[in-house]
Amino acid sequence: MSQAVSLLENVRIVLVHTTHPGNIGGVARAMKNMGLSRLYLVKPKHFPDEQAVWRAASALDVLDNAVVVETLDEAIADCSLVVGTSARGRRIPWPLLNPRDCAEQILPALANNEVACVFGREDRGLTNEELQRCNLHVHIPTNEDYSSLNLAMAVQVIAYELRMACLANEISHDEMEGWDAALATADDLERYFVHLEQTLIDMGFLKPKAPKQLMSRLRRLYSRKRMDELEVSMLRGILTATQAWVSKAGKGK
Amino acid sequence: MSQAVSLLENVRIVLVHTTHPGNIGGVARAMKNMGLSRLYLVKPKHFPDEQAVWRAASALDVLDNAVVVETLDEAIADCSLVVGTSARGRRIPWPLLNPRDCAEQILPALANNEVACVFGREDRGLTNEELQRCNLHVHIPTNEDYSSLNLAMAVQVIAYELRMACLANEISHDEMEGWDAALATADDLERYFVHLEQTLIDMGFLKPKAPKQLMSRLRRLYSRKRMDELEVSMLRGILTATQAWVSKAGKGK
Repeated sequence: MSQAVSLLENVRIVLVHTTHPGNIGGVARAMKNMGLSRLYLVKPKHFPDEQAVWRAASALDVLDNAVVVETLDEAIADCSLVVGTSARGRRIPWPLLNPRDCAEQILPALANNEVACVFGREDRGLTNEELQRCNLHVHIPTNEDYSSLNLAMAVQVIAYELRMACLANEISHDEMEGWDAALATADDLERYFVHLEQTLIDMGFLKPKAPKQLMSRLRRLYSRKRMDELEVSMLRGILTATQAWVSKAGKGK
Repeated sequence: MSQAVSLLENVRIVLVHTTHPGNIGGVARAMKNMGLSRLYLVKPKHFPDEQAVWRAASALDVLDNAVVVETLDEAIADCSLVVGTSARGRRIPWPLLNPRDCAEQILPALANNEVACVFGREDRGLTNEELQRCNLHVHIPTNEDYSSLNLAMAVQVIAYELRMACLANEISHDEMEGWDAALATADDLERYFVHLEQTLIDMGFLKPKAPKQLMSRLRRLYSRKRMDELEVSMLRGILTATQAWVSKAGKGK
């Protein structure tokens, strides 16, 4: 496990007064998928419960280690930063972050301290009083016409953003990473284009005196996707074979 | 609905050979929460099904409008860009994007064309043959020790990233947006500090000859919270009242 991702061990997911145990299981699974493990349950209606086990799939360890407490205060007592999930439009506005900006604010705090992310009831979320116990409020930008996100889905999104924030310096933005052959160089590509052009001339398909845009279009086509050495040599193999046929046909004339 | 978010109508979510109808319902809900509406089902095992209805909550319209087809080809036929979700480590590597970079590549394509996001079976994902029908592959960076994301959760993450990409120019990064009072200016704040200092001196709490770090610490405290005008005037009201008491007590001496 990388150093950055191990920071996620300092994140505690706190569920307040959860009604459906299936959601607790779904949350456990979402947490484990993203590398989180510490679940706190404030007065869950049913827990332990087989619905939770069923929805947790293989994240039973998260359920087994869940800490059940009576009050939100107990769940967040030793945390240096407490983030509450909130719908828009509270009576008293509070600084409201989107999940990405929120994860960026949480990340530095994880280095030395525990951070709690608090999620409210399935039907009514967190009360104003509970939200006032939080340092930051986060809002997932849902469809305004249909904004009630399932509890486990909300945890999934926040946990995903935390993981992405931890991985920010590690995630490769190179879609060709881990490719199974060395990428072709500009030289390789140029030699291929020369070979292609000669073959098309040999075939009589390209008239050097009226080349139109043929080579430009072919260059654009092959250049815009990065090719590897095997692919280029495969294509050149086809050209060589084509030239052999043209040559053979020419001799037969 | 904003122009940008309406682009999401051009996204089609394609589920291939889904086994559990509950997952189809969960996908419908996740889609609607993020503003997506077009669901294609390739040979679902059970559909329609009451489990799907139950998990869909209020996203029944997405289920009702779902298009059931026999083959992946039918589901993606008229799409200009097809994105497949993939685990790492396929035999033949393919360009592999994370959900954020993927959403950024999808966004421009949505302006004029339909884009399909294809999700595979709960247990085995997409086959290599199915993945080869896709232009791009996307991988959700899960915990390496526990990577099997629930189907609806995977759709949630991708749909969330698409929505975030659409909102990119619209989302406010100012956590004080929508605040219910004008924010205090630096002048307001400075007048408050002067008032505070004078009050503390009046109270004998601050000794001008041995001020220690008192005002520095108070300045740091109040400055790092951006305050609004009401808050500042409230605090100054308290100072004025305090001064009145100090003055009154002084007179009584």
